[in-house]
Amino acid sequence: MNRRREEEYELYYWPEIQGRGEFIRLALEEAAVPYVDVARLPESEGGGAGAITRLLNGERGNSLPFAPPVLHAGAMWIAQTSLILETLGPRLGLAPADEAGRVMCQQLQLTIADLVAEVHDAHHPIAPSLYYEDQKDEARRRTASFLKERLPKFLRYFEGALGDKEWMVGSVLSYADLSMFQVLAGLEYAFPHAIRDAARLVALGERVTKRPNIAAYLGSKRRIPFNTKGIFRRYPELDLARR
Amino acid sequence: MNRRREEEYELYYWPEIQGRGEFIRLALEEAAVPYVDVARLPESEGGGAGAITRLLNGERGNSLPFAPPVLHAGAMWIAQTSLILETLGPRLGLAPADEAGRVMCQQLQLTIADLVAEVHDAHHPIAPSLYYEDQKDEARRRTASFLKERLPKFLRYFEGALGDKEWMVGSVLSYADLSMFQVLAGLEYAFPHAIRDAARLVALGERVTKRPNIAAYLGSKRRIPFNTKGIFRRYPELDLARR
Repeated sequence: MNRRREEEYELYYWPEIQGRGEFIRLALEEAAVPYVDVARLPESEGGGAGAITRLLNGERGNSLPFAPPVLHAGAMWIAQTSLILETLGPRLGLAPADEAGRVMCQQLQLTIADLVAEVHDAHHPIAPSLYYEDQKDEARRRTASFLKERLPKFLRYFEGALGDKEWMVGSVLSYADLSMFQVLAGLEYAFPHAIRDAARLVALGERVTKRPNIAAYLGSKRRIPFNTKGIFRRYPELDLARR
Repeated sequence: MNRRREEEYELYYWPEIQGRGEFIRLALEEAAVPYVDVARLPESEGGGAGAITRLLNGERGNSLPFAPPVLHAGAMWIAQTSLILETLGPRLGLAPADEAGRVMCQQLQLTIADLVAEVHDAHHPIAPSLYYEDQKDEARRRTASFLKERLPKFLRYFEGALGDKEWMVGSVLSYADLSMFQVLAGLEYAFPHAIRDAARLVALGERVTKRPNIAAYLGSKRRIPFNTKGIFRRYPELDLARR
């Protein structure tokens, strides 16, 4: 028996984008636990996008996930980004110890997930199966509304939740802080002019980038650069839609 | 001290629609625990939509929710539908006892939440702040894609998760079953021709309606009828978009 191998975490997520998988990668990297980013292995070792489609097509039997990311942890196969983080949090020392704190941490994560879904739909308002080019006019309208109404509302909420504290929940770093950093980094990439009146969140993001394990990760090849295949996309015509 | 009063649950949700609040109402009704549906009280008793806006505007201090539903349970204020159910589940006897079961139950609930968000955006693809009439053409395109591609994918996933079992997770009813029923009822209202190849889910929904407490609730005035202000809306021109 190869015990170490069994205890490893396996992440299943698309290999060419940060996407929703990045929230899981950041937690595993901060905790410095060994994990396999399965689809980023060579195809000869079972990697590539085929690893994801095989999982979605039922290779693993009953517990079919609806969509990646999926984490294989011990005997469990867990889908849904927020749920993966909620389950990993206590194991990795990235969740508050008390119930009220854990609930608040997950509440923030779920609201981050809502924001991420709206960021995606800003460039794909009609259908995920259509090219961006086939829904560009609608994307411009939706992005204008997103940048004027929705994003400021989300940022006000997160600023209020952070308040004057160093971290989002309680007095220690949690997965909600890592996820908040990721969202801010994505927004900064996609909409360079959009983050306003959120100085405390920006400072939080900077604190996260200074964590030694996160700094090492961000400087490594494991961190996939933002690109226009992911959730956060830099389309200048959309960034300008707010005017 | 009025101990009973303190132990009651208070639900904060818009008083004129089922919406996301309905998932919480169904769990509380099935468990037959006393709860106050705050915004459905008369305004003279602190109810009405004003109860929600006061909460969102910060009357309760730091733990501002981003959006309703919000559940006040003991000392906790919990937002996010899935998280409310996850927290209530074990207390109401509506969640599996083992960790793998609890994780699966929440995974299903989060995927139901994703489906619900897509149902909403089918009639509001451009902006929640615009009237339906101002995004009707886009709604027709998005609904066509939703009914042809997305909904069948969700239904296949849920059918697979249910399999030949009586309930979605393990061998007893959980909040995932109540939520699945609610989604099927909403789809049946909004898109009467859309549910196909989901006979096992439909049978599950019927089993839920036969639970004595659910049957009593559905026959009561507490159950708000579906209407075209909620998430599930019957717009015949959208139902026909699939053709």
